[in-house]
Amino acid sequence: MTSKPSLSVLTLSCAILLLVSACGGDSKQAQSSGASSKTYNWKLVTSWAPKFPVIGEGMELFAQWVDSASNGRLRIKVYGANELVPGLEVFNAVSAGTAEMGHSAAYYWSGKVPASPLFASFPFGLNAQQFNAWYYGGGGKELWEEAYAPQGVIPFLCGNTGVQMGGWFNKEIKSVNDLKGLKMRIPGWGGKVITKAGGSAVTLAAPEIYTSLERGVIDATEWIGPYHDYKLGLHKVAKYYYYPGWHEPGTAFELLVNKKAFESLPKDLQEIVQTAAARTNIWILSQFEAQNNTYLQKLINEEKVQLREFPKEVLMELKKLAKEVAEEETAKDPQAKKTYESIMAFKKNILEWNKKSEDAMRPYLD
Amino acid sequence: MTSKPSLSVLTLSCAILLLVSACGGDSKQAQSSGASSKTYNWKLVTSWAPKFPVIGEGMELFAQWVDSASNGRLRIKVYGANELVPGLEVFNAVSAGTAEMGHSAAYYWSGKVPASPLFASFPFGLNAQQFNAWYYGGGGKELWEEAYAPQGVIPFLCGNTGVQMGGWFNKEIKSVNDLKGLKMRIPGWGGKVITKAGGSAVTLAAPEIYTSLERGVIDATEWIGPYHDYKLGLHKVAKYYYYPGWHEPGTAFELLVNKKAFESLPKDLQEIVQTAAARTNIWILSQFEAQNNTYLQKLINEEKVQLREFPKEVLMELKKLAKEVAEEETAKDPQAKKTYESIMAFKKNILEWNKKSEDAMRPYLD
Repeated sequence: MTSKPSLSVLTLSCAILLLVSACGGDSKQAQSSGASSKTYNWKLVTSWAPKFPVIGEGMELFAQWVDSASNGRLRIKVYGANELVPGLEVFNAVSAGTAEMGHSAAYYWSGKVPASPLFASFPFGLNAQQFNAWYYGGGGKELWEEAYAPQGVIPFLCGNTGVQMGGWFNKEIKSVNDLKGLKMRIPGWGGKVITKAGGSAVTLAAPEIYTSLERGVIDATEWIGPYHDYKLGLHKVAKYYYYPGWHEPGTAFELLVNKKAFESLPKDLQEIVQTAAARTNIWILSQFEAQNNTYLQKLINEEKVQLREFPKEVLMELKKLAKEVAEEETAKDPQAKKTYESIMAFKKNILEWNKKSEDAMRPYLD
Repeated sequence: MTSKPSLSVLTLSCAILLLVSACGGDSKQAQSSGASSKTYNWKLVTSWAPKFPVIGEGMELFAQWVDSASNGRLRIKVYGANELVPGLEVFNAVSAGTAEMGHSAAYYWSGKVPASPLFASFPFGLNAQQFNAWYYGGGGKELWEEAYAPQGVIPFLCGNTGVQMGGWFNKEIKSVNDLKGLKMRIPGWGGKVITKAGGSAVTLAAPEIYTSLERGVIDATEWIGPYHDYKLGLHKVAKYYYYPGWHEPGTAFELLVNKKAFESLPKDLQEIVQTAAARTNIWILSQFEAQNNTYLQKLINEEKVQLREFPKEVLMELKKLAKEVAEEETAKDPQAKKTYESIMAFKKNILEWNKKSEDAMRPYLD
């Protein structure tokens, strides 16, 4: 994986930019008829390593689908993290118009948009099916758009990991006492929960995780799920693999689009982007679900990983602390508070329905 | 919106084409490869009453999205059941080319395509998330296409009800003995299971259900879930409302497209259709999930419906019989057998992953 943008990539981008700006001046006339034949060459920056399994692959497919559906009129080049901008600069780059599009997870922007973790995942929050229902049918889409509007960015739901794994530990977690003093790589609200529990939360980018765990700089780390954790090789540097991923019960991804750029597109291309985002959303979740077990089995059977379930006592304590964190974080900001209240009201309802449907059915599907 | 290209638009397009081809190399090919301005006016027949909640609404949205994404080049008129062809003639109509498109549930065609119930839902089969994973990531899409190819029809997954309710009963089901002699409106493999259990299965179209239950022609009926059951008024003619819907743990819908018609479309419109089908797929499921609880609460609190869970003993017996039915039905036909084996192998894997993810997380989401 390359992590630095090469000069040639940057030079090439500039050349294309110049070419496009010299050629594509009068899209307005074309749009007045609706059937513009202007070609748009857009950049999509991501927070993922180039060709990152499932997520990066999903965005390559997204670009192909848009290209094909627009008959080549909207061409999107997908950049891995650091190929054009660092992974955690995706939101800023789209907001500034450096790139027209981005793909990331909203919780990375909590410093800028306090509500943002609610649009990705938060400890003991929503699972993927609940999040989709809230987004498409419970007012989530509108709240997300509202939260990003001041930044000139339009979000579209674009993928979900499903329930993640709880992470890799070098000692067993048998009680809440085992969390005290624990140095764990865990970002966002999950990290705040671990801190409240007496541990210390560390933020590390993906390439640093392996070495930090190997050298004992950290005692534990979460990452994603069996497929991605296997690819990162975490089983080679940690003994126990814990579930469930209480801190991320279903992490949603976002397609970010610069508002001005989006509004400059003819209506048909706007619809194509929105439609392809929804297709990518269900594609990514389905791939996670389809692939994760294959790698879970490899980890268990070939790598002899010790699989452990967090004890109930530990999860109940983390849940109590997670509620405190969510309330503290959302109290600071009216948009965050409104969004949190929307989610909690929706969740209360859908859980009642879940009890009569998914939950009641599940034991008989085995 | 105009549907025919005016001369001025063509002239403008050509001018832009020249401009683009002078400036950027590949866009020329893109344009010449099929930026057709031909307008297609297509008919989409459905098995649902006109404006049927969620499902019919979803197909109206599908048509809007395709219209908008194609800039009016593919216009789809959605017909309710009996507006053009009867609800159960949808597959035949698409196969014959009477309508270019249809929307239905595959289990209606089990007489013609024995594998078809496996592409909708079958007793104790897959839930919605598992079905999506199998379709997009486990070979389901390819098997479905294979099964319909001899009929000249291309299927696209296009919606899911989620777990259905078990149905409305005029007497309580306390043991398997209570199924003996029970006259229940329940189609497909679910009906065969009820027959094996000593009951008798009746097939009735939606408008006949209410009166048949009211007059005691049947003792019980299944329909869909709280939202649709409420709209049909079934709580007025039956005393007990049972869950879970063991016979349909997640019913997938299909967009059917006449193969010749699909192949006559330019590539961009083909991609638009496929992309909009996936968007509709997740939209419909999310609406079911979002709406069902609201109506479940109305039924309980306003209509004082007696909610009952099927006893474990009953569900275990039905499950045993369901396995017999699935094996008998799929033994008759190689395509059905192959599809059933694919589903069961996929399910075995994904359930192992579910146990470490959704199942382990679920108790802590409350």
